Amino acid sequence: MHSFELLSQRFSLHFEQRHFPESPASLYDPNEYFLQLGGKRVRPVCCLMGNELFGDIHNDAWPVATAIELFHNFTLIHDDIMDKAPLRRGMETVHTKFGDNTALLAGDVMLVKAYEYLAGIDPAILPAILKLFNDTAREVCEGQQLDMDFEKAETVHLDEYLDMIRLKTSVLLAASLKMGAILGGSGERNQNLLYAFGQKLGMAFQVQDDYLDAFGDPQKFGKQVGGDILANKKTFLLIHALEMTTPAQKKELEAQLAGNAPDKIAKVLSIYHACGVDAWALELKNKYLDEALNHLEDIAVLSKRKEPLQNLASFLVKRDH
Amino acid sequence: MHSFELLSQRFSLHFEQRHFPESPASLYDPNEYFLQLGGKRVRPVCCLMGNELFGDIHNDAWPVATAIELFHNFTLIHDDIMDKAPLRRGMETVHTKFGDNTALLAGDVMLVKAYEYLAGIDPAILPAILKLFNDTAREVCEGQQLDMDFEKAETVHLDEYLDMIRLKTSVLLAASLKMGAILGGSGERNQNLLYAFGQKLGMAFQVQDDYLDAFGDPQKFGKQVGGDILANKKTFLLIHALEMTTPAQKKELEAQLAGNAPDKIAKVLSIYHACGVDAWALELKNKYLDEALNHLEDIAVLSKRKEPLQNLASFLVKRDH
Repeated sequence: MHSFELLSQRFSLHFEQRHFPESPASLYDPNEYFLQLGGKRVRPVCCLMGNELFGDIHNDAWPVATAIELFHNFTLIHDDIMDKAPLRRGMETVHTKFGDNTALLAGDVMLVKAYEYLAGIDPAILPAILKLFNDTAREVCEGQQLDMDFEKAETVHLDEYLDMIRLKTSVLLAASLKMGAILGGSGERNQNLLYAFGQKLGMAFQVQDDYLDAFGDPQKFGKQVGGDILANKKTFLLIHALEMTTPAQKKELEAQLAGNAPDKIAKVLSIYHACGVDAWALELKNKYLDEALNHLEDIAVLSKRKEPLQNLASFLVKRDH
Repeated sequence: MHSFELLSQRFSLHFEQRHFPESPASLYDPNEYFLQLGGKRVRPVCCLMGNELFGDIHNDAWPVATAIELFHNFTLIHDDIMDKAPLRRGMETVHTKFGDNTALLAGDVMLVKAYEYLAGIDPAILPAILKLFNDTAREVCEGQQLDMDFEKAETVHLDEYLDMIRLKTSVLLAASLKMGAILGGSGERNQNLLYAFGQKLGMAFQVQDDYLDAFGDPQKFGKQVGGDILANKKTFLLIHALEMTTPAQKKELEAQLAGNAPDKIAKVLSIYHACGVDAWALELKNKYLDEALNHLEDIAVLSKRKEPLQNLASFLVKRDH
């Protein structure tokens, strides 16, 4: 059993090699370019940790974790095209550097390469892993489509937003952990509890992300605080605020959304404070974190084995009181 | 053992059902729209025929054939985005009707759905089928990238063009047949011969397609004759003509390519005739067809069983003398 940090180092050593053929370079150089931009590799490491919760790391955990990371990168390349994002991790996105068509095809072949890693694993576990991988991939596509739909929608209800976030971000974290559990030889009940842990942890993380974008310490946050507000992004905060404000506050909030006043961020934040959205978000985050940890608690293995995942939860989501 | 026509009817009955969930409709309606545009379903039927060459149709031949057809449709949706094609089979393409972003995502989820059909087959044959499917998917992406590269390239050599065509169109036909052979329980030697048959048949078909675009009977061809010439498309004919013309003919051909004279088609055709590109293309087509049929001949099963595939070859490629 190893910590997230140690498994992250081990995975990086394993992952940082060439994954694609040399030729045609016009197709594969963009893939290699994108992969060397790095990333926290949270999802593949979750697969390794899910495995270690139940037993020694299975040989096939490495190709499965690699497939998960390649799948994640496929979604990023295609999402960047759809969002017309110029930069990722401070560097040019694939479509900016190589053109939309090549980025589209580079994403396609990144997804195929993920399946190539899966195809080589022990045939005894391949069907279960492949089914979970497919279900998850389909759900992530659904989440991205809903996210695009919501951008254009007049109103989005909180339960719709929760479902979109679950599909777009939580299911991949949950599935990564569950694939690890399958590799570790866990029974179905424990697999499902670990999946539920991952889902709730993902939700807590996303609430935190939305919260920090509005209320975070600019020194620590790393991105521009208030970026979501300027972009009128439908976040947990905005959706809940629109649902719970007084009619007068709602009118002012909608006026701010309609314009681009120089003090827009401050004005929106003061409405958020006035209607208590900040406290509500922290409570919601804590609720998800508690639910996640309760699922982990319910898994039938020695408590000691759960410590790395408890630490991971604390690392990803800070508890607020 | 059944004819192409009969298996095509049986496959259509099997395939023409809803493949995607109802919701989100914004993602899945575009997929269903595209699938109901129809198509000849040549590739999935080749899978069934490859199976029947060696034995009764395996239960899993249906999901594998379905996966092949969904994969083919995934490539069409994404190719149409890249080519900015407004129409397919006389109807609006997915990106024209639903926007580029939704088309991108609809293609992605079409590919995932193909893998969903594969995931349910007998675990004893899943690894072999999945590996061949992945290899082929990667090669088709490579072919599409090379095709885009060649559009911009100053010169393309015949051997480069042959390799692009092999990747973009032949390998999927070949792999469909070989997956059928695997399902039919054939040995490796026979599998490889059937794959080689498919590759050569695909090449013959593409030479014929390029030939008919220039020299076909407008009544029978269905598309505008000379369309490739007007678009300066690098076809077998143009590439070979540029390599074998006299310096004077080459100069005139290049002048025609540089402009858009009203008699461009007639002028280019007369150069093609003068340097014998038409006869060369017919010979090349016959050569590929002969090679294909020789591979089929070499397969160690009763001659009688090969008749449906021989008929398919005659149906897809007409022999010229």
